[in-house]
Amino acid sequence: MAVQKVLLGGQWVAADSSGTFTAENPRTGEALADSYPVSSWSDCDKALHAAREAFDHLRTMPRDQIAQFLEKYAELIEQRKDSICALAAEETALPVSPRLADVELPRTTNQLRQAAAACRNGSWALPTIDTKANIRSCLAAIGPVVVFGPNNFPLAFNGVSGGDFAAAVAAGCPVIAKSNSLHPGTTRLLAEAAHDAACATNMPAGTIQLLYRLDHADGERLVADRRIGATGYTGSRSAGLKLKAAADAAGKPIYLELSSVNPVVILPGALRERGAALADEFASSCLMGTGQFCTNPGLIVLVAGQATEDFVAAVGEKFAAAPVGTLLSRGGARSLAEAIEVLKTAGAAVVAGGEGGGGTGASYQNTWMRINGDEFLQRPHLLQTEAFGNASLCVVAGDIAEVKRILDQLEGNLTGCIYSHTQGEDDADYAAIEPHLRQHVGRLLNDKMPTGVAVSPAMNHGGPFPSTGHPGFTAVGIPASLRRFAMLQCYDNVRPSRLPELLLDDNPLGATRFVDGQARS
Amino acid sequence: MAVQKVLLGGQWVAADSSGTFTAENPRTGEALADSYPVSSWSDCDKALHAAREAFDHLRTMPRDQIAQFLEKYAELIEQRKDSICALAAEETALPVSPRLADVELPRTTNQLRQAAAACRNGSWALPTIDTKANIRSCLAAIGPVVVFGPNNFPLAFNGVSGGDFAAAVAAGCPVIAKSNSLHPGTTRLLAEAAHDAACATNMPAGTIQLLYRLDHADGERLVADRRIGATGYTGSRSAGLKLKAAADAAGKPIYLELSSVNPVVILPGALRERGAALADEFASSCLMGTGQFCTNPGLIVLVAGQATEDFVAAVGEKFAAAPVGTLLSRGGARSLAEAIEVLKTAGAAVVAGGEGGGGTGASYQNTWMRINGDEFLQRPHLLQTEAFGNASLCVVAGDIAEVKRILDQLEGNLTGCIYSHTQGEDDADYAAIEPHLRQHVGRLLNDKMPTGVAVSPAMNHGGPFPSTGHPGFTAVGIPASLRRFAMLQCYDNVRPSRLPELLLDDNPLGATRFVDGQARS
Repeated sequence: MAVQKVLLGGQWVAADSSGTFTAENPRTGEALADSYPVSSWSDCDKALHAAREAFDHLRTMPRDQIAQFLEKYAELIEQRKDSICALAAEETALPVSPRLADVELPRTTNQLRQAAAACRNGSWALPTIDTKANIRSCLAAIGPVVVFGPNNFPLAFNGVSGGDFAAAVAAGCPVIAKSNSLHPGTTRLLAEAAHDAACATNMPAGTIQLLYRLDHADGERLVADRRIGATGYTGSRSAGLKLKAAADAAGKPIYLELSSVNPVVILPGALRERGAALADEFASSCLMGTGQFCTNPGLIVLVAGQATEDFVAAVGEKFAAAPVGTLLSRGGARSLAEAIEVLKTAGAAVVAGGEGGGGTGASYQNTWMRINGDEFLQRPHLLQTEAFGNASLCVVAGDIAEVKRILDQLEGNLTGCIYSHTQGEDDADYAAIEPHLRQHVGRLLNDKMPTGVAVSPAMNHGGPFPSTGHPGFTAVGIPASLRRFAMLQCYDNVRPSRLPELLLDDNPLGATRFVDGQARS
Repeated sequence: MAVQKVLLGGQWVAADSSGTFTAENPRTGEALADSYPVSSWSDCDKALHAAREAFDHLRTMPRDQIAQFLEKYAELIEQRKDSICALAAEETALPVSPRLADVELPRTTNQLRQAAAACRNGSWALPTIDTKANIRSCLAAIGPVVVFGPNNFPLAFNGVSGGDFAAAVAAGCPVIAKSNSLHPGTTRLLAEAAHDAACATNMPAGTIQLLYRLDHADGERLVADRRIGATGYTGSRSAGLKLKAAADAAGKPIYLELSSVNPVVILPGALRERGAALADEFASSCLMGTGQFCTNPGLIVLVAGQATEDFVAAVGEKFAAAPVGTLLSRGGARSLAEAIEVLKTAGAAVVAGGEGGGGTGASYQNTWMRINGDEFLQRPHLLQTEAFGNASLCVVAGDIAEVKRILDQLEGNLTGCIYSHTQGEDDADYAAIEPHLRQHVGRLLNDKMPTGVAVSPAMNHGGPFPSTGHPGFTAVGIPASLRRFAMLQCYDNVRPSRLPELLLDDNPLGATRFVDGQARS
């Protein structure tokens, strides 16, 4: 069994490793063929050194060259689509079609191309010029960025091809990617394409680097190292909080996406008006991708009454009738079972499912639970435990006043949805509860489930802690996502020949800039 | 001796206090007349409750009303200028004229008025609309903000009137101000004006609140409380890092301004060309305000040679000849003495000064020290100890290569300056060293001292840790400074009647917005 090489300083080299690991097929539980190294600190140190050298070159390289790299990379991913999707399906149990080949891969290449356009144009950096005082400023690359990718999007959020990667590179930062341990093969294929694209476009050697796994202590040391600029992390809350503590203590920005139960409120008028259709819509959103989406609706709040009882029963029937999907891993099935136990112990009653298994390989029954609002309010923290997968909890409030009290107890979430009567019968209730939801969520939706995250400049895939580490930033949506990997750089009385292109008087990049208080293109 | 009242929930009330303190005149060491309470947690809790209630109202109030408050407040400060400046001078030893009355007070009212304009217009919030997908987003008030003001700008950075205050209120956040303990009387007069302006413009009762002092543990609890949105802190590194740890652990943004030695490099050609004038310019900048500016040049790097020896000697003469100013407090004089001892122990040789006293009251001799580059590189951390006050350290490097190594060792700073020959004789050296300085500083200056911080939209008064807590934000410069006190809020498919004004199709505020990728006003 071959041990795969890591990508360091522009070369695929044997890792300095303290051990190896293999991925497994979640459908069969069998180990896949290749073996991957757990890198020692020595590999991290080499990566940091090479990233720093690459950064020195990237800072002064034409933006167009970075954009060309991103576009070439997108092209190579498309050329290698079949092998990438086939291996991703083996490692994650996600279907090649439509999910990987028709949705996630095009999303990935689309993100890379949007990032290239943002990089070329420069408007993302909010260039600002005070001509009288001759003071100029813009956001600029913060330095090498470490990206830890999550388990649930092997392409579109992969550390070496996903949203954080695209944003960091487009901002001008080298990336040290840490593969998710569940899909190292997919990550290797992507990194090969990235490396080939980097060679074809003459990028500095350490621009794209890949490590497969690190000891926890080395991960914490990495995100706090003097040589890095920032970190992007999407994954479990427990691991993320340890990285956050290490990065915070060193004063290094870390952008985390940790966990979110994505509350949905259906107001009484909407339930009266279209309860059966909403039960369909809700159940489909809950079970899509076996519930393994960051924006999966894990918590729904309803007001007690017959329409609610009908809704709960209808969703229960749909959950029971729907096929049980294969989860991303046995570990994921274990975590889901543990979270459901926490919810049950805190008082949630199982309406459907509630037991392990039910599908092929790593699986857990589609699980639908309920609890009354007054009970929820006794243990609001435990009852917001994220059950990552095909499980959701319904909270039945006594009245709208109790809905408000429930919303007041919410932790920070990526999304929050309110469904209301189309002809205005819920408008007073909407106005009463909206302020109690708005500050707890990054994206507020009306009459729409949260599971679609459009790559739109207006998207916010972010939210208050603990859904992310800082509520001012988004991980999806270009150009805003680039701003995470930047520092504000001001030039005061600096001679024109020494200014970055973006701040020159004649605006050679054609960026939108704020000149003497006015936006100008 | 009267114990002054705190401002809680729109009322001046007796504090629930665990003790009292007095300010003292740094010129005479005498305690001033009034006594101020150390608030217990109960006061903090009341403030948080009232701030939360105020925030619920502020969220939906017309932006124009908030702007009117800021403008009325500026007007009242001007009306009460004489009493405010007189008391500030007593508490800080800063002269009424020109410093307080002619520079700092107009800067303060100017900031409030610029913040009002930014609030009214809304462009600061980067409103972004995707008309096809009907997704809209903008930055929006993050919630109640706690502001800890520093000792060195009793008006322009005061927690209840300064840059953080103006930015937070303009963003739509109530402020809980914690007075700096050295100038509680000035803070009280300002808070009275703020309160009167808030009453005159019908602001919610808890919009502006004031506490004078807290136990450290209560401060840490306050910045981590669920009810606050964010914190602004300007002050000592040690106290700031404790607050940062508490806020970080709770996932609450905290914007810190901690310390900065503001490195200056004078390249050999500039020294040959205009060494005597530069010695004048540098010494004036070092001693301005007795060196108690955040952007005071505390570290200068020169290349060895006769011109450098002449410069060092000339600055030494100027330091020795200049009158020794009164420092802000006896504690400040003690801290300065301690920092100078650290520098001396680490190898810095005193060229001028180096002893306590020399001025009226709290004072320390104007102190000019030097060390060689190779010695600096042996203890770079200790030799970057901030000596807050009228003291600076000169590092004499062997050559330009050593300048680069010195710059590589810099911690994050607010500013960095490079002086170079006007006719281009230093251009190669500039190009060689600039990359080693740029990433360590928020503002890069050419041929200009860092002590002026213009209130310009292009200003960056920020920088990498530990000069601040996050290098993407500025504390000075409107509208950018408002973005610190905001979260990103997205509206996905939300009905028009439920959108904030800023995101309505017809743009009633006339803000600059990004609509389908294009900036539009």
